[in-house]
Amino acid sequence: MTTKAPLVVIVGGGFGGLAAAKRLKCSPVDVLLIDRSNHHVFQPLLYQVATSVLAPGQIASPIRSLLAMQANTSVMLGNVTGVDAASKQVIVDADDKVGIRVSYDYLILATGATHSYFGHDQFAAFAPGLKSLSDAESLRNHLLEAFEKAEIEDDLNRRKALMTFVMVGAGPTGVELASAIAVMTQTTLRKDFRRIDPESVHIVLADMGSRPLATFSENLSEAARQRLVSLGVDVRLGKPVQAIDGDGVVIGDERIQAKTVVWTAGVAPSPAGKWLGCEVDRAGRVRIQPDLTVPDHADVFVVGDTASLDQDGRPLPGVAQVAMQQGKYAALSIFRKVIGDPPSPSFRYFDKGNLAVVGKNFAVLQSAGVQISGFMAWLVWALIHIQFLAETSLRFSVFLQWAWTYLSGKRAARLIIRPRSDR
Amino acid sequence: MTTKAPLVVIVGGGFGGLAAAKRLKCSPVDVLLIDRSNHHVFQPLLYQVATSVLAPGQIASPIRSLLAMQANTSVMLGNVTGVDAASKQVIVDADDKVGIRVSYDYLILATGATHSYFGHDQFAAFAPGLKSLSDAESLRNHLLEAFEKAEIEDDLNRRKALMTFVMVGAGPTGVELASAIAVMTQTTLRKDFRRIDPESVHIVLADMGSRPLATFSENLSEAARQRLVSLGVDVRLGKPVQAIDGDGVVIGDERIQAKTVVWTAGVAPSPAGKWLGCEVDRAGRVRIQPDLTVPDHADVFVVGDTASLDQDGRPLPGVAQVAMQQGKYAALSIFRKVIGDPPSPSFRYFDKGNLAVVGKNFAVLQSAGVQISGFMAWLVWALIHIQFLAETSLRFSVFLQWAWTYLSGKRAARLIIRPRSDR
Repeated sequence: MTTKAPLVVIVGGGFGGLAAAKRLKCSPVDVLLIDRSNHHVFQPLLYQVATSVLAPGQIASPIRSLLAMQANTSVMLGNVTGVDAASKQVIVDADDKVGIRVSYDYLILATGATHSYFGHDQFAAFAPGLKSLSDAESLRNHLLEAFEKAEIEDDLNRRKALMTFVMVGAGPTGVELASAIAVMTQTTLRKDFRRIDPESVHIVLADMGSRPLATFSENLSEAARQRLVSLGVDVRLGKPVQAIDGDGVVIGDERIQAKTVVWTAGVAPSPAGKWLGCEVDRAGRVRIQPDLTVPDHADVFVVGDTASLDQDGRPLPGVAQVAMQQGKYAALSIFRKVIGDPPSPSFRYFDKGNLAVVGKNFAVLQSAGVQISGFMAWLVWALIHIQFLAETSLRFSVFLQWAWTYLSGKRAARLIIRPRSDR
Repeated sequence: MTTKAPLVVIVGGGFGGLAAAKRLKCSPVDVLLIDRSNHHVFQPLLYQVATSVLAPGQIASPIRSLLAMQANTSVMLGNVTGVDAASKQVIVDADDKVGIRVSYDYLILATGATHSYFGHDQFAAFAPGLKSLSDAESLRNHLLEAFEKAEIEDDLNRRKALMTFVMVGAGPTGVELASAIAVMTQTTLRKDFRRIDPESVHIVLADMGSRPLATFSENLSEAARQRLVSLGVDVRLGKPVQAIDGDGVVIGDERIQAKTVVWTAGVAPSPAGKWLGCEVDRAGRVRIQPDLTVPDHADVFVVGDTASLDQDGRPLPGVAQVAMQQGKYAALSIFRKVIGDPPSPSFRYFDKGNLAVVGKNFAVLQSAGVQISGFMAWLVWALIHIQFLAETSLRFSVFLQWAWTYLSGKRAARLIIRPRSDR
């Protein structure tokens, strides 16, 4: 490293942060990417880890190896706890070192979002979300254990509760997870249990809104709803979830006994707004300017799910594409500043389209006026998701895994892995 | 299930129990296999999960799916806590049900072994062993974190301790793990870190005995020792480990500061002997008869690492081959009893040979008077280990992974996966 090059600190190794780091590969800057986890996760496929189709390693890559060939880039495993914008430093806890101060010349905050219980934090203990590999592994353990417990349960009501799975929130994650659980019970698990009947599984997908996949067109929502129903998913719309506890949920005024409840409803941004002490939107996301910087801090960029920016009068959605395009834009802006070029025109999001999968052989696709649902959309979904994986080896591995699971109906990763207390 | 068929209860889904269950496929009996984990693990490759070559799912298979096609066989996820041989029942804890009594007509105990600290149980907290997938995952997390911590550590002594890895016990597990860590640091990690120098890694393999791989011939031990040294492993023989704490070990009278210590020394059998109240050997293994049954209990078989049987005046070793051959023998004996055939001749172990791998391209092999070391032995090792995996899909997957890792020097599974406390 030369000591002269400006240092760009990127916080977060998700879609936005990684895109920014890669775009800075050949820039005359040093880059330090800080993340609290050592891997980049391809979040759109987390539900496949939770339902034992893919192994965790197939959708995650060590951030270090993704950036190993960039000589100007370092990676630090650490938890950022604040930003001191006045002295241009981020504050990091790493290992047992608390409050390390790392100076920056430019800062890109790409710290993402976590799930939000909309003020019902008491739900968290009973209805975990699905945002990290660890979430996906623990949901996988939980789902597989529910079947194991049902197999030895003699009490009919308890067995029913063990075989009832409730997803709260019918956005893409809820829809994809509910349909994946339906496929899992109908194919893989059918042969494996002697006492329980996979037909008696009850999968509930609940949402306050009037349709699933509300960001898609009404036609596609309806196509998805019909597909969910044909997979045996009990779609409950228009009623809020009033309560969640260890034995079930209350939807509207009906109680459903269920030992598995997954929170697929809402997300809350990272505390980047608090760190910067700047203006945030109602959800808590940092209100950024059209060049993605924070007002009064031309050297601080905020991108992805933790940023709030309107385009054509509407806020940009919290999706991977926005984060990646913003990350690249921020990197390019910094590059231009460093080499003395005039700034780029304002950021503009190019929406390539929207996709969600509903079980085997079926997806909905909406892109540039085109709306399709069914097998073709599913093929497009599969190809695009393979293409967007971070490493060639993962593309190969996921492709083979899907082909094998598709043809054999078997799943590779049906493992309950927990530390044993008696060791 | 017919209610008339005798019920064979098998406790343990390791090599012995699984071999017995499979051998009973077409027998006129019902089979119930009880294990406290839902998967069968191919233990000889655990060290490759710990060193990020293979993912957990590549060496483990759900016991249910391995036995799904056997209509006479059920699987139960439960923890056996005792045997009531008088009333022919095993006692099982499953889910929140304590002390379930399961009746058997024949019982096969294949409950294996765990690591033993030879009376130094205080070592356990600082020097975990490597017997389960969970052990392997947590060692993988620990190894990767040690490098991450070293990368941000300014204190030279602390950095040195973070980069020192001590294996206590130079049997196959210790030798394979030490050499795998050496290869990992020299290949994969070399490019990924900016500050730490993989050359400064210090890998110590300690053993009280005078040579590594003491179950092999002296020639092969020496070949393995030379190979270890050429990989940069510091082989310390002939001195006992006196102390282990959170900062290092004392070998003989020398203290080595190390943040990673792995116990690869000894194993202790499961408490099957206590459950049965029968005679055990010095290590606590059940002394079985030449037909593998327990004295006075002709319907109770004990096989594998938890059994003790002499052959030609020497105790049989605690290896997978013995467990598998014994499991098959016990199944065959039960089959013969059920159909009224005369009993088989006494069990006789057929030793196919012994293999251990030392890093890339090198293994030692000892079989029927043949002793070879080097690349050819390594090829044989790779072929045999692929062949013995429990499922065709895993053979395919492991073969591809090895080929890819071998050619690219990259590792697929370098993930630190931990639940986050701040969620």
